[in-house]
Amino acid sequence: MYTLYYSPGAASLLPHLLLLEIGAAYELKRIDTAAGEQRSPEYLRLNPNGVVPTLIVDGRPCAETAALLLLLCERHPQAGLAPAVDAPERAAFLQGVLYLANTLQPAFRLWFYPSDAGEVDATVLKQALRARIEKCFDQLAAQLADGRSYLLGERFSALDLYATMLMRWSRNMPKPATEWPLLKALAERIRARASWRRLYEIEGLTEWA
Amino acid sequence: MYTLYYSPGAASLLPHLLLLEIGAAYELKRIDTAAGEQRSPEYLRLNPNGVVPTLIVDGRPCAETAALLLLLCERHPQAGLAPAVDAPERAAFLQGVLYLANTLQPAFRLWFYPSDAGEVDATVLKQALRARIEKCFDQLAAQLADGRSYLLGERFSALDLYATMLMRWSRNMPKPATEWPLLKALAERIRARASWRRLYEIEGLTEWA
Repeated sequence: MYTLYYSPGAASLLPHLLLLEIGAAYELKRIDTAAGEQRSPEYLRLNPNGVVPTLIVDGRPCAETAALLLLLCERHPQAGLAPAVDAPERAAFLQGVLYLANTLQPAFRLWFYPSDAGEVDATVLKQALRARIEKCFDQLAAQLADGRSYLLGERFSALDLYATMLMRWSRNMPKPATEWPLLKALAERIRARASWRRLYEIEGLTEWA
Repeated sequence: MYTLYYSPGAASLLPHLLLLEIGAAYELKRIDTAAGEQRSPEYLRLNPNGVVPTLIVDGRPCAETAALLLLLCERHPQAGLAPAVDAPERAAFLQGVLYLANTLQPAFRLWFYPSDAGEVDATVLKQALRARIEKCFDQLAAQLADGRSYLLGERFSALDLYATMLMRWSRNMPKPATEWPLLKALAERIRARASWRRLYEIEGLTEWA
């Protein structure tokens, strides 16, 4: 039994999708980020950085979106969401997850919260971030250029869910991810999954359906 | 047999230390980053982002420092560099690695290469980065505040090596990591290890010995 602290459409979308894919028992606790609940003393005790998601695992609070991806995949190997440790795609899986975690996701964080970078000119910063995000989409599209259906080949993995959540965040940007035909095709495969549709119902999402 | 493309003191230091801790057979290929070799066509074929490290694993190039950490730990479980998948410290290990990978390491990247953020005022940006890096050191020190010897408790792990490499990068900053007594004590434990001393010899490092 897991407990997920989430906010609709935020980075908690990824562990939520994974829990649905796994078929694990979980309960949800909604954090009203517009009201600043992520900075309440109760929540900061669980998550000192004051961000969603937090996942309670065996009674302990765990954070970091990509760490939760790795943790859920390895705790539920029967769900087949990641290549096994001895599979040839394992290195590409880890590399792909880390690339999204330390390049694309932090760029989006600054895109939405440019004040994290201090008193810099937000317009200038966002111009650089837009270029960086689009370069990441170029690289993801390049990985799909050989005609493969998913980022690791013909086999779907949690990496595709992570990439699709981040593509979703670009929907109101000047050049959203769906402008890359190969990325659009990947997003359509993921959006057709039962887990994605169920998550939209539960979280009450409507955009980018 | 591994092949590591490295530059002395760069992020390749972490996989290099791990190879020494594991006792794995490897060969080194030095990339002269001052001469721009990381942007040569040969190297870009291995590493399209043009950064070190690249590790050749089973004949394939693998990148992303933290992904290499996870990969080497799981390929060599007998080295005991990470908690096992079913160990209670596993979630904290993954969370710690991802936190360093997506918060502290990218902040250092921008500290050293502020032009990655575009045409923003580098002085203003570096002020924000300094605050961010020091906040990360506060958080790492807080994890050691209960008197534990290592970040996960009494047991040394690859997470300590990763943190110590990043602490080393602060040595010429206004407030280096060693100004936090608990971080200094951790760094001294890691610098006393045979792997660290051997790495200094091989890479020809002298500072922060």
